[in-house]
Amino acid sequence: MLSFEPPLREQIFLLERVLHASEQWQKCSDFSSMDANDAAAVLEAGSRFATQRLLPLNASGDRDGCRREEGEVKTPPGWTDAYRDYVDAGWPSLTVPAGQGGQGFPRAVGALFTENLCAANLAFSILANVREGVLACLTRFASAEVLALYAAPLASGQWSGTMCLTEPQAGSDLGLIKTMAKQETSGLWRVSGQKCFISNGEHDLTPNIVHLVLARTPDAPAGTKGISLFVVSRQQLADGGIGARNGVSLLGLEQKHGIRANATCALAFDNAQAHLVGDIGQGLRCMFLLMNGARLEVGVQSVGLAEIAYQNALQHSRTRLQGRALAGVAQPLLSADPIISHSVVRRTLLAHKQFIDGGRALVALVGLLLDKEQHHPDADERRRSGDLAALLTPVVKGYLSNQAAEHIGAALCLFGGAGYIIETGMEQVVRDQAICRLYEGTNAIQALDLLGRKVLADQGARLKLLGALFEETAVALQQAPRLVPLAASLQTFSRDVGELAAALGVDALFNRETVGHAAPAFLELLGHTVMSWMHARIALAAASEDDTWHKNKVTMALDYVACIQPRVASLLQTLRSNADSVSRLETVDFSAL
Amino acid sequence: MLSFEPPLREQIFLLERVLHASEQWQKCSDFSSMDANDAAAVLEAGSRFATQRLLPLNASGDRDGCRREEGEVKTPPGWTDAYRDYVDAGWPSLTVPAGQGGQGFPRAVGALFTENLCAANLAFSILANVREGVLACLTRFASAEVLALYAAPLASGQWSGTMCLTEPQAGSDLGLIKTMAKQETSGLWRVSGQKCFISNGEHDLTPNIVHLVLARTPDAPAGTKGISLFVVSRQQLADGGIGARNGVSLLGLEQKHGIRANATCALAFDNAQAHLVGDIGQGLRCMFLLMNGARLEVGVQSVGLAEIAYQNALQHSRTRLQGRALAGVAQPLLSADPIISHSVVRRTLLAHKQFIDGGRALVALVGLLLDKEQHHPDADERRRSGDLAALLTPVVKGYLSNQAAEHIGAALCLFGGAGYIIETGMEQVVRDQAICRLYEGTNAIQALDLLGRKVLADQGARLKLLGALFEETAVALQQAPRLVPLAASLQTFSRDVGELAAALGVDALFNRETVGHAAPAFLELLGHTVMSWMHARIALAAASEDDTWHKNKVTMALDYVACIQPRVASLLQTLRSNADSVSRLETVDFSAL
Repeated sequence: MLSFEPPLREQIFLLERVLHASEQWQKCSDFSSMDANDAAAVLEAGSRFATQRLLPLNASGDRDGCRREEGEVKTPPGWTDAYRDYVDAGWPSLTVPAGQGGQGFPRAVGALFTENLCAANLAFSILANVREGVLACLTRFASAEVLALYAAPLASGQWSGTMCLTEPQAGSDLGLIKTMAKQETSGLWRVSGQKCFISNGEHDLTPNIVHLVLARTPDAPAGTKGISLFVVSRQQLADGGIGARNGVSLLGLEQKHGIRANATCALAFDNAQAHLVGDIGQGLRCMFLLMNGARLEVGVQSVGLAEIAYQNALQHSRTRLQGRALAGVAQPLLSADPIISHSVVRRTLLAHKQFIDGGRALVALVGLLLDKEQHHPDADERRRSGDLAALLTPVVKGYLSNQAAEHIGAALCLFGGAGYIIETGMEQVVRDQAICRLYEGTNAIQALDLLGRKVLADQGARLKLLGALFEETAVALQQAPRLVPLAASLQTFSRDVGELAAALGVDALFNRETVGHAAPAFLELLGHTVMSWMHARIALAAASEDDTWHKNKVTMALDYVACIQPRVASLLQTLRSNADSVSRLETVDFSAL
Repeated sequence: MLSFEPPLREQIFLLERVLHASEQWQKCSDFSSMDANDAAAVLEAGSRFATQRLLPLNASGDRDGCRREEGEVKTPPGWTDAYRDYVDAGWPSLTVPAGQGGQGFPRAVGALFTENLCAANLAFSILANVREGVLACLTRFASAEVLALYAAPLASGQWSGTMCLTEPQAGSDLGLIKTMAKQETSGLWRVSGQKCFISNGEHDLTPNIVHLVLARTPDAPAGTKGISLFVVSRQQLADGGIGARNGVSLLGLEQKHGIRANATCALAFDNAQAHLVGDIGQGLRCMFLLMNGARLEVGVQSVGLAEIAYQNALQHSRTRLQGRALAGVAQPLLSADPIISHSVVRRTLLAHKQFIDGGRALVALVGLLLDKEQHHPDADERRRSGDLAALLTPVVKGYLSNQAAEHIGAALCLFGGAGYIIETGMEQVVRDQAICRLYEGTNAIQALDLLGRKVLADQGARLKLLGALFEETAVALQQAPRLVPLAASLQTFSRDVGELAAALGVDALFNRETVGHAAPAFLELLGHTVMSWMHARIALAAASEDDTWHKNKVTMALDYVACIQPRVASLLQTLRSNADSVSRLETVDFSAL
């Protein structure tokens, strides 16, 4: 079984020293009483729950999976008890606003709390985080009457929630949705149709499940403009409690590559009672609030899984004895050297650790930006924060999940053949993490969202905001002699990416397909530069301390930027000749492939 | 379930037009009667066996797996029948020399035959290929008496074979092996010890299993020089038949990430009767003949699995309707465009196809080189072929399996959420292929073997041989106006890699650890340049034809080399500053990570 020690020191250093979270919270009235001690206390208690209650169920949950029994879904042994403990401890309400009976913690703290849950048990964490998104969506868009029906049990975790978007013919393209909603003369809506790939769609953990469902209304225009959002309770609501089953039934339970303890369901809605959420035709807009939260969570998941993989690979590398170091025997008293003596192993571990440090900083930063978008007193700051969060969301989702897959794959290889054995535990991390590249919009969709919508559609305005932050960091770096090389790199990266984006915008005027073609490389490019920025900020925070732990941070930042530079150059070169690549691609006759 | 159409046109084009295999076989007496028609007939019949008998058992074999029952291993339903048909059809003896009762086909044909088996059912194919390696090893190193005991039943597939190398404490580092062999006064050897990760270690397909076992002899020196090779029959051999069980028993059956229908076992040898194979202390040398064959097979496996993943991703991309092409609606009569209309999807598919074409050419080329090493009448040509095969073997094993993992992962993503569902079949390909990066020496070991042993240890002599072949192809390319850019690229790549290797050799004089650190990037670099060479040769073969299929080959070659150039430049840049990277790495204090 895998071991896991929540990286509390890393998380608290990040919040306090790198991101200066307390200072920023103090400016937001809702969080003005938060400080570093509150965050530390919550993370510590949460990490105990993760390691003591969730980690022991991770491998067994994967092995046993969910089972379908007479139209219902049974979660694996121990799951219902763990969920009850989770609710009893109050964890579901951690980031729910105090006004809704929650504990009102900022999103950045929530992200780090969730990271530890994900590391210990991804399947469990998914259950929790969709519920939070459903509550946030209802809070923002539902009428007070409708919200009142759901807010308290969702906030407390008494009920769970789902997003019902996908249908067999409508995945990436939600404009193709066929599920219909019709209004009765009483004003109540009825939803009918089939949805698939619904996380937590059916299970035995809560007495009710709250489904947010995208559906068409009669005479709605074709495509995405004809889609509205509805809330459907699995159980009918009566007298402040729950009654008989609503018209929602289980069509199928998917057998999956990973997250096997999380129930991924096909659901049938048959004249199910529903309430409209938001305005008619605004379904996609409403759902995107939830979707953006979900995409941030995917980054959190990827960092958490990378962390547990890293810890176990590091431990294995320290204890597994094979071969002798090339430069000379490292441990003459042992039969062989621990494999961490080999520089190829050390480099693999270091790159993994650098990914985690930078990735964690990025997700926490986006959490902070979302907090500021919602709670900052200054309207300009709210808008700026929202724009930056929008730009960075596809990076968090797409880039971090792609990179996590690479690093976790490399960590598995450090185990040799043992990595392939289920008992070792590493292969489950690989399988569980694989969902991160696929769901909440595949990474190709993230890349298109980034380059098409977030960069080119606003003529690079959001990218300029980011560039200004790079510059701010560069100015600070210039005060620290050892960090000056980082400043120069950040400035170069920022200038090159900006010029490249402008050139891609010109290409797009001639052929829109160039945008799609460039998108994945652009996502990787922006990801590497944002990670460089994160490492530079970490180095700034660490430079004033003289102990080994802090010195490592500075070394890792300098090393990260030096190592990534050739890769950045390669992506720039690829993207500068993007239009040529598209021309060559267009001369291939795919019908003959 | 996945569909699969064996790529016979590709395979025959490759043998005949790209590699001119017939011409080369004619020079080797053992193959002088082979021609293109023989190869085509065998590949066609073999592919029918793969699709009709093995493909239908692939998903069910994965689902049911092998079971342990009272010290024995039961293969999944249908497996024993399929294996009997395989033997009855004579497939096991395809590449066994005619003098041993085999059909005497060249290795290059065997590799392409096996590719189709791997695509259809990797777990089955592994069973078959270890047996072939065991026979080849006994043929080369065992005494005539010992060989006579095993040759016929191994050639016919009546018995299967294993390689017993790994022990719990000895994986990458076989010098740590503890299994002991002692000679009785009668001259018979007895082997005792425990081996793990033994593919096909125990099963119900054959009445006997032939184990090649690495063991120490009494008073042998420590490390690899003290290791000898033994053959241990699971059943005692008596009167030309098999008798009671020898001292070999099943310790454990591994539950694995993939290839679940292939039994990976831990075995106990307890005073098992054994025969020495080769000389005392020469065990590793003997085993390496087998190991090199196994490493070529891993490349074949990666190409085969990439092929089935590609075919299904292509088919899915043609039929899955989502979104509209960015440059304008492609299929106005449909509800949405097939996703192949999106350039990002086309690029993913094209890169995958380019990998397969180049990778298949490389494994077939190495197959031909091994044929020539063994059968060519000219001693210089035999030595040159062997040297080139030795250089390219870690590229085939390490580079192709790494790249296959990337492309298969990208193909999975084209399926969106459906890729994560077991029923779709793609996720099994991901899991099965994952073993290719791990077994027969992890890819870190391959990288070290390539740079340390195959390039630096002989001062780049083998690399120069390869460079001469690049130059030969470049000269031919210069005769075809459209292909001249390929000639220039090949010459540049060859010169740059040669200069780089020399520089890495100098670095190594100062710090041997620089070799280990550079190795993975060097493996990728040489892989990309060898793939470029393969594509150039494919383009040369295709350039004279004017139909779409051949024109695509030329376009793909030009595109491959253009697309890979920035990546090659990036790896060169990384490797040129390798010593600096090692210095930075050495300043990190790993005890504080």
